[in-house]
Amino acid sequence: MELLSQTEVFDGWLRRYRHHSEATATDMVFAVFLPPQVMAARVPVLYWLSGLTCTDENFCQKAGAFRLAAQLGLAIVCPDTSPRGLALPGEHDEDDLGSGAGFYVDATEPPWADHYRMYEYVTDELPTLVEMNLPVRADKSICGHSMGGHGALVAALRNPGVYASVSAFSPICHPTEAPWGRKAFSAYLGPDPADWQQYDATLLVASAEERLPILIDQGSKDPFLESQLMPEAFRAACDAVDHPLTLRMHPGYDHSYYFIATFIDDHLRFHAQALGA
Amino acid sequence: MELLSQTEVFDGWLRRYRHHSEATATDMVFAVFLPPQVMAARVPVLYWLSGLTCTDENFCQKAGAFRLAAQLGLAIVCPDTSPRGLALPGEHDEDDLGSGAGFYVDATEPPWADHYRMYEYVTDELPTLVEMNLPVRADKSICGHSMGGHGALVAALRNPGVYASVSAFSPICHPTEAPWGRKAFSAYLGPDPADWQQYDATLLVASAEERLPILIDQGSKDPFLESQLMPEAFRAACDAVDHPLTLRMHPGYDHSYYFIATFIDDHLRFHAQALGA
Repeated sequence: MELLSQTEVFDGWLRRYRHHSEATATDMVFAVFLPPQVMAARVPVLYWLSGLTCTDENFCQKAGAFRLAAQLGLAIVCPDTSPRGLALPGEHDEDDLGSGAGFYVDATEPPWADHYRMYEYVTDELPTLVEMNLPVRADKSICGHSMGGHGALVAALRNPGVYASVSAFSPICHPTEAPWGRKAFSAYLGPDPADWQQYDATLLVASAEERLPILIDQGSKDPFLESQLMPEAFRAACDAVDHPLTLRMHPGYDHSYYFIATFIDDHLRFHAQALGA
Repeated sequence: MELLSQTEVFDGWLRRYRHHSEATATDMVFAVFLPPQVMAARVPVLYWLSGLTCTDENFCQKAGAFRLAAQLGLAIVCPDTSPRGLALPGEHDEDDLGSGAGFYVDATEPPWADHYRMYEYVTDELPTLVEMNLPVRADKSICGHSMGGHGALVAALRNPGVYASVSAFSPICHPTEAPWGRKAFSAYLGPDPADWQQYDATLLVASAEERLPILIDQGSKDPFLESQLMPEAFRAACDAVDHPLTLRMHPGYDHSYYFIATFIDDHLRFHAQALGA
């Protein structure tokens, strides 16, 4: 891992690293906040998965999360949202496909299959790398926003026992029925919807092996609420199998990082409690 | 004033407005955070002046200030850092002159004099507009970063009785001796250094009519510390006339918004106490 920068913040450190990824067959950059407690002992880790068009930087700059994370002794790892540095056909043409829009799936279709393997990257390769090279424990939780909320829910539902807790802001809950999800899954996974189900939280929760409690915050003025996010479909799927879900609707709030900043402390406390931080 | 957007955040509202400015003879955009307390009563206002290359948005997105401002009942107004929408000769060629670099002076030299009047804008026109149109009291304080820290100190020192308190992060304390300041002042104010003194906090403090306590935070790893910012010169000038100054040096911190975010709560409490918020 190559250290690109280190910035002091809240008596802890924000670092950016570049490393070669086997999963994506590219270099990848990620950010990590290390709280001051790492001077004394290894700390648990919260993984943050970002939404469309984001990089590793949006959450770090805009969420206002490091103040409380420094108090709680929680490291936060922020991966990028896709491979970078490629020039695949159509890769940089649209906000919701290709660069910045990896959707946390392992693509099987050309031209994406050799590189767009963000599911393997965030659930396997990156945690292994982080745990080998940084002063953190193996205890981890996962959280995300929009496309990244989808990624967090899928990662937790498909990997029982791996995450101590999972939460999401404004997640794409049912991508196989949402325009963003259908477009991305068609491109990355091919035309057969049967191949998409492993990446749809609303479809996965019925067979979840673990009753891991889920926290979701959603703004009522989010312009994507009905068309793309569908939290009510996820609620119904959870209710059908009695999966524990706390879905909080917040009147007046939108899809932005101002919404995330307003409620991020609740998520940090939720995860810190599960992680014993 | 034209309302461009309103975003719910921490139970308050971030609004962006556009209005015609007499001072700059252009349209200007500013941001204002209104805390939830405005539903019951008018609130005091903190003016935030940003640094080089910034707009009204940097502080709102990156400082993490609205959480505590919402608790304290403090409005925060963030003006832009220069006029926009012009095409003066050389205006957009460099980061430290022209657009994004108004330096909070009233220019007297061509081609700037008709528009680059940010001192009048932030100390007179904008507060008048805000107090006429928004649910705020006339009680106000001022704060800023880098070029905006310079602007805040100059505004407070030149307007006794107007601001309840003043503070700054990494301010350009002595611009007449700093490369950024000398370049900007030469262009905006002409070649005679006698005309620059009215915009140099280190020179102004000797004749300050009011012993308003000043709070300054400065990172020791700030790359501009010695060459551009010169807090020790300002400290010496304050000491010489016994002007109350709290200058806090923070080991390890740099010039970024991560430094601001780390200590913004201290500044908000400092101003809220002075404002009776």
